[in-house]
Amino acid sequence: MNNFTFYNPVKIIFGKGEIKAVAKEIPADARVMMTYGGGSIKKNKVYDQVMDALKGHKVIEFSGIEPNPRYETLMKAVELARAEQIDFLLAVGGGSVIDGTKLIAAAIPFQGEEPWDILSKKTPVTHAVPFGVVLTLPATGSEMNSGSVITREETKEKFSFGSPFTFPKFSILDPETCYTLPPRQLSNGVVDAFTHVLEQYLTYPVNAPLQDRMAESILITLKEEGPKVLANPTDYDAMANFMWSATMALNGVIRVGVPTDWATHMIGHELTALHGIDHARTLAIVLPSLLRYKKETKREKLLQYGERVWGVTAGSEEERIEATVQATVNFFESLDIRTKLKDYDVDQETIREIVRRFEQRGVKNLGERADIQVSDVEQILTMSL
Amino acid sequence: MNNFTFYNPVKIIFGKGEIKAVAKEIPADARVMMTYGGGSIKKNKVYDQVMDALKGHKVIEFSGIEPNPRYETLMKAVELARAEQIDFLLAVGGGSVIDGTKLIAAAIPFQGEEPWDILSKKTPVTHAVPFGVVLTLPATGSEMNSGSVITREETKEKFSFGSPFTFPKFSILDPETCYTLPPRQLSNGVVDAFTHVLEQYLTYPVNAPLQDRMAESILITLKEEGPKVLANPTDYDAMANFMWSATMALNGVIRVGVPTDWATHMIGHELTALHGIDHARTLAIVLPSLLRYKKETKREKLLQYGERVWGVTAGSEEERIEATVQATVNFFESLDIRTKLKDYDVDQETIREIVRRFEQRGVKNLGERADIQVSDVEQILTMSL
Repeated sequence: MNNFTFYNPVKIIFGKGEIKAVAKEIPADARVMMTYGGGSIKKNKVYDQVMDALKGHKVIEFSGIEPNPRYETLMKAVELARAEQIDFLLAVGGGSVIDGTKLIAAAIPFQGEEPWDILSKKTPVTHAVPFGVVLTLPATGSEMNSGSVITREETKEKFSFGSPFTFPKFSILDPETCYTLPPRQLSNGVVDAFTHVLEQYLTYPVNAPLQDRMAESILITLKEEGPKVLANPTDYDAMANFMWSATMALNGVIRVGVPTDWATHMIGHELTALHGIDHARTLAIVLPSLLRYKKETKREKLLQYGERVWGVTAGSEEERIEATVQATVNFFESLDIRTKLKDYDVDQETIREIVRRFEQRGVKNLGERADIQVSDVEQILTMSL
Repeated sequence: MNNFTFYNPVKIIFGKGEIKAVAKEIPADARVMMTYGGGSIKKNKVYDQVMDALKGHKVIEFSGIEPNPRYETLMKAVELARAEQIDFLLAVGGGSVIDGTKLIAAAIPFQGEEPWDILSKKTPVTHAVPFGVVLTLPATGSEMNSGSVITREETKEKFSFGSPFTFPKFSILDPETCYTLPPRQLSNGVVDAFTHVLEQYLTYPVNAPLQDRMAESILITLKEEGPKVLANPTDYDAMANFMWSATMALNGVIRVGVPTDWATHMIGHELTALHGIDHARTLAIVLPSLLRYKKETKREKLLQYGERVWGVTAGSEEERIEATVQATVNFFESLDIRTKLKDYDVDQETIREIVRRFEQRGVKNLGERADIQVSDVEQILTMSL
C-alpha cells in the first residue's frame, strides 16, 4: 500500500425528509446565496422545501448555472454575492451546480488578477466562503469532495481545481428529490459513478486488498441498483443505494494508498468542451478503448475486475480481458449510453483538434503510470470512432 | 436504508516514516502534553521519533495510562494539563491512550461538578482541548472516531462517551510502529476490529447492499491479513492492511443507514471491569453465544455472512448458521484467543454479579432490536461458561 493522507470533513445528512435540516446547518445570521440551475427544482418542489427551511434567513437567489458550468456565468454570481455581502452559499442541484458553487465560493474572496487563474494556472485557493449542498442528482460525487470542473465558453476549455477550503460544510442527500429525474440523467449518473470507481481501481496492484474490495463493492452495487433505478425511479431503496454509491465513489475512501488513472476524464473533458457531449457519455466513449489500449499495464486489475464484478473466469487471459471490457460496454449500452464517437456524430477531425489542443497545452504523461502521451490519446480516440 | 448523518473530520496520515508530520500538524506556539502508556514507545523508538518531530514545541509528558484507562489516572493528567496551561494534546499509543486522551481533552475545560458525569450521567461535552494521535496498535479504531471507553477503578465501572468535540484533529498511522507488538496484542487487535464490524453488520437487512459489502470487505481482509501479521509482524503490507482495516471498522463508514447491535460490547465491558480480561477476549467470549442465542432475529444476515465471508453454502439454514458461528470461533481460536469463560477462570458467580449490576443500573433493551433483557444476558453468558 502507498502512503496517503485522507481528510474529508463534509457532514452528510442522508434520507427522505432531511432537507429541513438546512435550517440548523446554516448560521441564523448568515446572508445566504442559493445557487441552482434551470427550473427543475421548482417543478419537483425541492425549491419550496429549501425555501421553507431557509425561512428567517436573508436569501438571494442565483439561478441559471448550466450543465458543465461556465466560468462566465459563475463570475456573474460572484459579482452579485460581493454586492450583497453574501457569507454563506447553498448549492441546490447536481454536480454542475455544486462545482460552480465551489468556484463562486473561492472566487468571492479571491485577491489575484482573475479567478480563472485558479483553474488555468492552478493558483492555490487560500480561503473560500462556506457553503452547503442540497443534492438532487447522484453522479459526480462533488457533494462530498473538494474538487470542481469548470468550462470557459470563450476558449472552450474545461479545467479542474480543488482545495481544502472547497469541501461543502454539509450535504443533504434525499433520494426522493431524484424521483423526477429524466432517464438520461439517471443513466449518466450511473455511468459517471461507475467510471469514477474504475479510474481509482483499474490501475495496477499495490497490495491494498481492502481498497480493492471496497471499490468492487461500489461497482457491484451500481451494476445491481442502476438498472432498478432506471426501471423504477420511485423505488426509494434503489435510489438511496445508487445515491450513496455515487457519493462513496468519489469521496476519497477508495482512493487511499492506491494509484489512480484519470486519463479517461482528461480526454473526455475535451469531447464535452468541443461538442457539449454529456460528461458521462464521454467517459463511456473513452474508457473501453483506453482499457483495451492499456491492457498490458492494467492486466492484473482487469482480470480481477472481470472475475469479481462480472464473473468472467473462462478462457485465456486475453479472452477474459476482452470479455471484461465488453461486459462494461454492454452495461453502459444497457443503460442507453452509446459508446462510440460516431454515435455522437464526432469524427477524425475532432481527434485531430484534441491532439492539437493537448500539444498546445503541453498535456502529457497521463494515467497511473504517466505513460500516456498525446500520440496514445490519438490512438485511443481512433479506437472509439 | 435508514436515514443517517455521517461526519468524520479526522485527518489520517498513513504510512512508513510519517511520524515527522506531527511537526506541521500541531500549531508552532502550542503548549503540548504528550500522553502515553507504559514504556513500549521508548523501546521501539516511537518516543524518539515523536520527540524529534516536536522539537521547538513546549512539551509536557504524561505517561502511565493503563490498558482500560482509569478515570483516576486521567484526572491526574487533567490536573497537570491545567497547571501547565496545555492547549494541545498528543496521544501516542493504542486505543486506551487515545480513549484516555479524549477524556482528558474534554475534562480540562469541564465546568460541571466532576468530569465523571460525562460518562455516568452522559453530561454533554461542549468543548475540548484539540488533540492528535500517533497510533501504535491497530485495534479499537479510536484514532478515527470520537468515542471513548473509560474505567473507574473505585467502582469497577466501564462506561463510554462520545462527542463531536472529541475527534482527533489528525491521526498518524505508521505500520512500522507495530512491528514490535507482542502476539497477544496483535491477535486482540484482529478480534477487536473483526467484532466491531460484526456489531454493525450482523443485525437485520435494511436493503443497504453497499454497506453490507463494505463490512464484508473488512471482514475478509482481516480474515486474510490477520494471520499474516501474526506469522510475520514485520510484513509491511500485511500490517498496513490490518491497520487500515481496523480504522475503517469503526470510523462510521460501514455504520451509515444500518441498525447496529453493540450488546456484545456492553456485556464484554463487564467482564473487563470485574476480571481485567482483555477487551478483545471478552468479545470473543460473548459474541458466539450471542449469535447462537439470537440466531432467529439475525437469521438473514448470519446466512449472508456465512456465505460471503466463510463460504458456508452447504446444509440446512440451521446447519449453515451453526457452521458460520463455528467458523468465527475457529478464527478467533486460530489467533490464540480463547472463547469460553472457563478459559479465563470465570464461573457462574461472575454471571450473577453482572446480572446484579445490570439490574441495579437499569440496563435493558440491548441489541439492534432492543430486545435483549437482563435475563437474556444471563442465558448468553451461561452459554459461554
